[in-house]
Amino acid sequence: MASLLRAAATLGLFPRRGYCSRGAQGELSKGFVEALKAVVGSSHVSTAAAHREQHGHDESMHRCQPPDVVVWPQNVEQVSRLAALCYSQGLPIIPFGTGTGLEGGVCAVQGGVCINLTHMDRILKLNPEDFSVVVEPGVTRKALNTYLRDSGLWFPVDPGADASLCGMVATGASGTNAVRYGTMRDNVLNLEVVLPGGRLLHTAGLGQRCWLQPHGALCGCHPAPAPSVDTTVHILQAAVPVARIEFLDEVMMDACNRHSQLNCPVAPTLFLEFHGSEQALAEQIQRAEEIAGHNGASLFSWAKEAEERRRLWAARHSAWYAALALRPGCKGYSTDVCVPISRLPEILVQTKEDLKASGLTGTIVGHVGDGNFHCILLVDPEDTEEVRRVMAFGEQLGRRALALHGTCTGEHGIGLGKQQLLQEEVGAVGMETMRQLKAMLDPQGLMNPGKVL
Amino acid sequence: MASLLRAAATLGLFPRRGYCSRGAQGELSKGFVEALKAVVGSSHVSTAAAHREQHGHDESMHRCQPPDVVVWPQNVEQVSRLAALCYSQGLPIIPFGTGTGLEGGVCAVQGGVCINLTHMDRILKLNPEDFSVVVEPGVTRKALNTYLRDSGLWFPVDPGADASLCGMVATGASGTNAVRYGTMRDNVLNLEVVLPGGRLLHTAGLGQRCWLQPHGALCGCHPAPAPSVDTTVHILQAAVPVARIEFLDEVMMDACNRHSQLNCPVAPTLFLEFHGSEQALAEQIQRAEEIAGHNGASLFSWAKEAEERRRLWAARHSAWYAALALRPGCKGYSTDVCVPISRLPEILVQTKEDLKASGLTGTIVGHVGDGNFHCILLVDPEDTEEVRRVMAFGEQLGRRALALHGTCTGEHGIGLGKQQLLQEEVGAVGMETMRQLKAMLDPQGLMNPGKVL
Repeated sequence: MASLLRAAATLGLFPRRGYCSRGAQGELSKGFVEALKAVVGSSHVSTAAAHREQHGHDESMHRCQPPDVVVWPQNVEQVSRLAALCYSQGLPIIPFGTGTGLEGGVCAVQGGVCINLTHMDRILKLNPEDFSVVVEPGVTRKALNTYLRDSGLWFPVDPGADASLCGMVATGASGTNAVRYGTMRDNVLNLEVVLPGGRLLHTAGLGQRCWLQPHGALCGCHPAPAPSVDTTVHILQAAVPVARIEFLDEVMMDACNRHSQLNCPVAPTLFLEFHGSEQALAEQIQRAEEIAGHNGASLFSWAKEAEERRRLWAARHSAWYAALALRPGCKGYSTDVCVPISRLPEILVQTKEDLKASGLTGTIVGHVGDGNFHCILLVDPEDTEEVRRVMAFGEQLGRRALALHGTCTGEHGIGLGKQQLLQEEVGAVGMETMRQLKAMLDPQGLMNPGKVL
Repeated sequence: MASLLRAAATLGLFPRRGYCSRGAQGELSKGFVEALKAVVGSSHVSTAAAHREQHGHDESMHRCQPPDVVVWPQNVEQVSRLAALCYSQGLPIIPFGTGTGLEGGVCAVQGGVCINLTHMDRILKLNPEDFSVVVEPGVTRKALNTYLRDSGLWFPVDPGADASLCGMVATGASGTNAVRYGTMRDNVLNLEVVLPGGRLLHTAGLGQRCWLQPHGALCGCHPAPAPSVDTTVHILQAAVPVARIEFLDEVMMDACNRHSQLNCPVAPTLFLEFHGSEQALAEQIQRAEEIAGHNGASLFSWAKEAEERRRLWAARHSAWYAALALRPGCKGYSTDVCVPISRLPEILVQTKEDLKASGLTGTIVGHVGDGNFHCILLVDPEDTEEVRRVMAFGEQLGRRALALHGTCTGEHGIGLGKQQLLQEEVGAVGMETMRQLKAMLDPQGLMNPGKVL
């Protein structure tokens, strides 16, 4: 997809100047709010507490830090003018998509102007022969696939949530299909970026990045965590072109059963989906069954109808909410490590043991095809001791992944909670290079300050 | 592949300070040469005219501009110390791989120190379960695949020449397999980079990027240029997972026949290769034959044996030398445009007409699966009028590609000859951003000065 993503939202990265547009109480001056209204129209600017509150947090346990004002631009030119205005006044800019992030990336830690991009949700140009599409930043992945339904094409990156494509660019989203179709890095061809100050940067790139809608078949199989990964590795090594792989531990499976009214056996489960012609599918399924059997795993319930497959994946996509339902009133915290696939068995087994020993409530779900898995922990945000234990668990898991030559951020980004881990991952030269790059693009440090670096 | 490429060679990018290590005649001081010898050993430093001459040019018609000295480091630590030494003395650094580039990227336009990386040619670690391999920068793509032969794995990026992997990173190499396996961007996971001044930057990334050695079948078919591309597009749209596509016009086919002792019919030819199990192959071949037939193209000579396929691809890989043999004593100039695949028919037809009208000798060969094709023009470097006409032809073709939302550089990079086209392609903001980025990483402007920007 996205031969061109009008992605003001992808800049999110950095210290700030004084708030010359603020009054004595720190509130935004009336003149500045009027200037914002002059750009986008008065109905597309809000300083209402409810709006500010709603835009000060994402789905994670990071506490709400509201912006001073929310604006809804309608086009790139308005985003450019907003960026110029904020920069001239020394006010932070925080881009906002669907708010489904998990690392506090949208929290306005220094206040400022939240630019909500969801009104920019047009699909500008589909190029079916080139397998590419030009979209605005607020288009969500589901909206894009609904639009593509009759074209025979499909955009495969699928992080679970129905996120905006600009947010998916910002975090480098991955997902269930990454094993065959790649992540956002592989599927974004070009970006049109509004730089701080308002200038437009067009990146250059070409390629084929929409995909044909596949015929497919999905199955689940029940192994223990380590054999499930052996099965994955052996299937890949046998050149079976598996399209989607997802692992759910028994706690996650149970939660999904309840939340989405499924009847799957409560056991560690590997979902495998294969894409291809009728004949190719039959061959892939036969090979997969041989390999799973060889690893002592039992396959069950092949779902070949698109509707049935959709229902099972919808359950997976609701995993976050299914996990939250395990402890109503609690918040979720998701780890996001990714390791070389050969190291997955050991880290999964160890994490499962740590989880048990910790006494915390948590589930495991993961795109094991690319080595990425999530441990979703439930936490009472008022219980500071529990919050501390959850954070410590996340840090320990992150360090274990780094020791295995993995990364602390498979697809959720760094945001607020993983700055220390990032430093350990990329080292002093890496951090300095990223800081220089950020300062080069954003000399005043007004683009989403306080994140990542 | 390349979970980690020790790639001092990928820095190649920028104005310079005074040559404080030079004598009154501009030659390097004896003390500086001794200092280089202290780093890499005296047998790995040369100021001999033959060595300097050999390192001052690539395969293109860009005139030889020799460095002052050539050094052959043996490991990363030596590269780091060389970079620190050059930077402290204000001397340009030019990385050198196999010298098979086509844009004059290795020409030492301001003299300086050429760092030849071919002695760093060890394959450091193969991770078969992770489908990744760690290599030094001087490993060539053929050496890597020879090493991988018994592992069942394969590195698919194949630009034709047996280039070094560091050079392929620097130019963003593509090739015959790009349609299915992607370009260098898709296949390089991590880099260990020596920054100017000698610090080491480790990038972070994970993924599966070696591929299983495929079973395959190759065929040629004879269409006119436009139908050949229709066939390509229709095959892709029919979800036939074609692995390699290469187009040769009749002049190129004739030249390859002569140069590589083949007997292929002299006609515009599309080579198609399919990968998969016996059963999957049969299905793909049947679909491809239907589609080619529908487009009025005739398929011929399916080659299913690896040896026969190797022989045909070897002929393609020798296309540059086959073209050079059309006018012995002449130099070659290769264009490198890439357009959205839907625009390929028109630009191929137009280029063929322009070539005819120009009276120049030239062939066309291209990885049409990703919209990239090359027009190889033969030119007498002593004939300034002909050189001018060849350059004008290249610029015109580049501008035509830009008008079709394409790029002037599919895989050869910018180097010396395409700086004006790059400016037209990325615009003022793009150029300024790249210049700022270059200046940030290389504040003294000593890394391969005079290229790209």
